[in-house]
Amino acid sequence: MFFTFDGLDGVGKSTQIELFCQWLAEHGHHVVTCRDPGSTALGEQVREILLAADSGVSIARTSEMFLYMAARSQLVAEVIRPALAEGKTVVSDRFLLANVVYQGHAGGLDVETLWQVGQTATGGLAPDMTFLLDMPPETAAERLGRELDRMEQQGDEFRRRLRTGFLAEANTDDRIVVIDAVQPIALVQTAVRAAAAALVEMG
Amino acid sequence: MFFTFDGLDGVGKSTQIELFCQWLAEHGHHVVTCRDPGSTALGEQVREILLAADSGVSIARTSEMFLYMAARSQLVAEVIRPALAEGKTVVSDRFLLANVVYQGHAGGLDVETLWQVGQTATGGLAPDMTFLLDMPPETAAERLGRELDRMEQQGDEFRRRLRTGFLAEANTDDRIVVIDAVQPIALVQTAVRAAAAALVEMG
Repeated sequence: MFFTFDGLDGVGKSTQIELFCQWLAEHGHHVVTCRDPGSTALGEQVREILLAADSGVSIARTSEMFLYMAARSQLVAEVIRPALAEGKTVVSDRFLLANVVYQGHAGGLDVETLWQVGQTATGGLAPDMTFLLDMPPETAAERLGRELDRMEQQGDEFRRRLRTGFLAEANTDDRIVVIDAVQPIALVQTAVRAAAAALVEMG
Repeated sequence: MFFTFDGLDGVGKSTQIELFCQWLAEHGHHVVTCRDPGSTALGEQVREILLAADSGVSIARTSEMFLYMAARSQLVAEVIRPALAEGKTVVSDRFLLANVVYQGHAGGLDVETLWQVGQTATGGLAPDMTFLLDMPPETAAERLGRELDRMEQQGDEFRRRLRTGFLAEANTDDRIVVIDAVQPIALVQTAVRAAAAALVEMG
């Protein structure tokens, strides 16, 4: 079973992932968590290049996309596929969808091309369910309350395009569950678990 | 005008590029040289990750391919397209062809997919002429005479597949000129210039 969480920075992904994994573990799942990009030596190197806020290194949108794909491809090969093969449950903080929305819907690259290139990166592996934590971009930005990384510095207009992109993708894919993330933490988690319960075989 | 040099490590690309650029300059060309991966801040960072011989970082073949694509996409956006737009002549040490041969023909990834993903990386920009410096892999390996980087450590069988792959691509593309690189340096260069003369408008 492969779950992913996605949405704007600041919507509370980390907290919800933690609570969700506790619940899975209580029900007998061996849970592996990861983040995309990251969770491999290569992925963390690439993540550093991508998110360095003041490195002065210019990164074309297409290059950015390929760097995310490189990290993801390594994550699938090194972490996700082996875990799934051992019957574990994988929960990832972001995955291909984020790439499609950030570099495609909001960043201007062709969305269809991103899904296609993404197929090559994942070898066709897709999440069984994606929780899209949705809230107004202004609220998400306020909640961040820390220094912004390179991706987060792109401003309100970019964040609005991100939200629209995420919701557009959710409209075309049943496996993307939109969760109202403005609610209190416990209620968000209740919605996540309710959606997952239909899918997860409880141990 | 956009020229590239390719072939196994050890065939003498650097020397031939230098002589070729002198000749172009003598004939009034403003020449910009670059290497792929490399020649941009991002490209050099990626190059370091790719070629580090003893980093202990595991890199899946697909991730490797995407890293090369990221570097190339940046090279096209930051160096090659601007130079061509100013009427300069660009000479690159390797380009997409190397990626197709190393990760595809020799590395086992699907060759057609590599060309397709490469289209996205280059935005469709292809060299006007590619000089494929060809020699037996054993000769090329002997000539290296230095510590091998990660790509070069892959052994004789891999190098044989590389040569076969390069020659197979040359068979399907008129713009790839195969040059016998076992000849003395001056004769190799004569062959390069003879092939280019048909294409280059002499200033």
